[in-house]
Amino acid sequence: MTVSEPPGLRHLRDPRGYSIELGRDRPVRLDCGADIGPITVAYQTYGTLNAERSNAILICHALTGDHYVADPHPITGKPGWWNDLVGPGRLLDTDRYFLICSNVLGGCMGTTGPRDVNPATGKPWGLSFPVITIGDMVRVQARLLDALGIDQLFCVVGGSMGGMQTLEWCASFPERVFAAIPIATAARHSAQNIAFHEVGRQAIAADPDWCDGDYLSQGKFPNRGLAVARMAGHITYLSEAALHRKFGRNLQERDNFSYGFDADFQVESYLRHQGSTFVERFDANSYLYITRAMDYFDLAAANGGALANAFRGTPTRFCVISFSSDWLFPTSESRAVVQALNAVAANVSFVEIQSDKGHDAFLLDEPEFHATLGGFLDGAAEHRGLPRAVKDRAPGDGAP
Amino acid sequence: MTVSEPPGLRHLRDPRGYSIELGRDRPVRLDCGADIGPITVAYQTYGTLNAERSNAILICHALTGDHYVADPHPITGKPGWWNDLVGPGRLLDTDRYFLICSNVLGGCMGTTGPRDVNPATGKPWGLSFPVITIGDMVRVQARLLDALGIDQLFCVVGGSMGGMQTLEWCASFPERVFAAIPIATAARHSAQNIAFHEVGRQAIAADPDWCDGDYLSQGKFPNRGLAVARMAGHITYLSEAALHRKFGRNLQERDNFSYGFDADFQVESYLRHQGSTFVERFDANSYLYITRAMDYFDLAAANGGALANAFRGTPTRFCVISFSSDWLFPTSESRAVVQALNAVAANVSFVEIQSDKGHDAFLLDEPEFHATLGGFLDGAAEHRGLPRAVKDRAPGDGAP
Repeated sequence: MTVSEPPGLRHLRDPRGYSIELGRDRPVRLDCGADIGPITVAYQTYGTLNAERSNAILICHALTGDHYVADPHPITGKPGWWNDLVGPGRLLDTDRYFLICSNVLGGCMGTTGPRDVNPATGKPWGLSFPVITIGDMVRVQARLLDALGIDQLFCVVGGSMGGMQTLEWCASFPERVFAAIPIATAARHSAQNIAFHEVGRQAIAADPDWCDGDYLSQGKFPNRGLAVARMAGHITYLSEAALHRKFGRNLQERDNFSYGFDADFQVESYLRHQGSTFVERFDANSYLYITRAMDYFDLAAANGGALANAFRGTPTRFCVISFSSDWLFPTSESRAVVQALNAVAANVSFVEIQSDKGHDAFLLDEPEFHATLGGFLDGAAEHRGLPRAVKDRAPGDGAP
Repeated sequence: MTVSEPPGLRHLRDPRGYSIELGRDRPVRLDCGADIGPITVAYQTYGTLNAERSNAILICHALTGDHYVADPHPITGKPGWWNDLVGPGRLLDTDRYFLICSNVLGGCMGTTGPRDVNPATGKPWGLSFPVITIGDMVRVQARLLDALGIDQLFCVVGGSMGGMQTLEWCASFPERVFAAIPIATAARHSAQNIAFHEVGRQAIAADPDWCDGDYLSQGKFPNRGLAVARMAGHITYLSEAALHRKFGRNLQERDNFSYGFDADFQVESYLRHQGSTFVERFDANSYLYITRAMDYFDLAAANGGALANAFRGTPTRFCVISFSSDWLFPTSESRAVVQALNAVAANVSFVEIQSDKGHDAFLLDEPEFHATLGGFLDGAAEHRGLPRAVKDRAPGDGAP
């Protein structure tokens, strides 16, 4: 896979990605009213930006994701979260597209967040970091694209919180988005979603090692609280059917109940593992800030109470995708987006993928989902005048 | 409301209920293999046991419930959890039935549990309390009925974990149950249910004040962990629709986001309140033990892998009730019970109540549910030869 060097930038090449300083001269105005800058944005690219700068796809990551879309994760060593989708001839075809993914504002994998040092004080931001929104994340991404010299994205795509960013992009910068694929997402966070996030935040805040958010200065880590938050969240990412299929009531390396509080059941052992590995790669305060940003997201409220207002006159082509067993971002939420888009006569297609894998299906091997994604991208690329895929080209049809 | 004195018993009358010592001469053999005894069982009764001792209804409470079915709760002062159903002329008619409800083994409202002092050591049981099962709870209830001189119950009824006990009664003591009403329950705890319980247990265990279960000896209380456990649990008791209707995205006593981590949303404030009030009335170790008992419950596995075996030859009349929006104990679980009962040609009726209130609907004002309950009880009472309700009696039809 070719990793291109973006042209003419003051940026630092990390062994596994780029980082760039933004907002030194012109800070980013946040929704809370504060200005932030300079900030660092960590990002990764795959493929090559064409001469017309018309083949860029912005990939937006989910709550606990990062910009390592198709690289081994620097901490866990695991393959990137969309590893199988990225590469020459693959769905996100690095022969055709220039893929960009940046770690979100407030994150903990290279982009400025509460774990970083506040230049004004020389101490970690902690809870003095401003509370951010999905809109703020997108504003920072737009600054990144400015720096990369990309006026218009061919496509914005993302699942879950990545889908929220995708919708926000279309609402805030419609002229900069040729096509958009919001996946397994919603135009607002529901009461139940907020409730689950609040449980996670309370679990973190209940950990004495959180130190009211100041754990870094005190050399502590609220790992127990963060692990519980992850466990609670993780259940919501899977369907009941998926949990049943994966684990059922199977016991973990034993024939009978222990009549104790060990992890008797496989599902307990799995959850504990999810919790304990998560704390190795994620920052507790980032978890607070990013869940808060999701809770605050409400595109209708931000547009006079009518979601359609967010998309009025949109030039973007949409492909909205949901999964039938996703109970965190159920199909009804995607339908609400589609109805708003229909109300403004937008170009929109909508597919509910039949899957029993729950919310996480967008990260998993789901052939119908991938076929939908590929088909829409191919059609949009044709409309955008991008060259066809290498494998589709007739002999003599031009250089690869 | 008349509270009868059960006949001829060595029991203590508490201002708000009875307590009785059981198992001094003959300890209770638990599923884990341990014997326990003597134990104290706290219980409450409503109405009067008839001369034939044929009008007793055993009410089984849920995970965080207790025997204060229709009394003000001694700690919170709130009305009993089925307060509106109990009384003269009401569904659970104290003019007709003798109602009994006991705090479960492992509980913290008067029946022996981990909070109590182990007579063998003079110290609180804590984690030295044996791990119990739904079967153990029912075994203790059967001992209580022995002591009360009740051979056969007219009916066993309960929701959620109370429904599990109801099913266990029918499987373990079929001849002692004339009629049974398992509500919003299942014959086994699902992987997702176990997962949610495990989150709660981990939240408690993550609290340093839990002291590895020994908090009572150390004068501490893992209130933060227990509150988080309650919050996680509480979400599962409500439907998404109920949360949306009750709270939606409404803000709590403010017009705009705080851009902080206060409880901006009503649903956050509500959850925090649920957590903070729960810790005043519940014991953290009891929460561990009772959730564990629910997780272990699997009537099919306990009966050679076929649920029907649990009910073969059952003389009991069943009324199985589920709620359409209950995602913790969905209708499919009730259907599995009904199918097993049908397979053994049991007398069973099944009603799925259309409700958007979620699992907690069995505790709420649901007219169709109450009509179902009342209709079944009336029919069963007629079959059992119990007198009709006062209001239904023709003049001169008998006393009172």
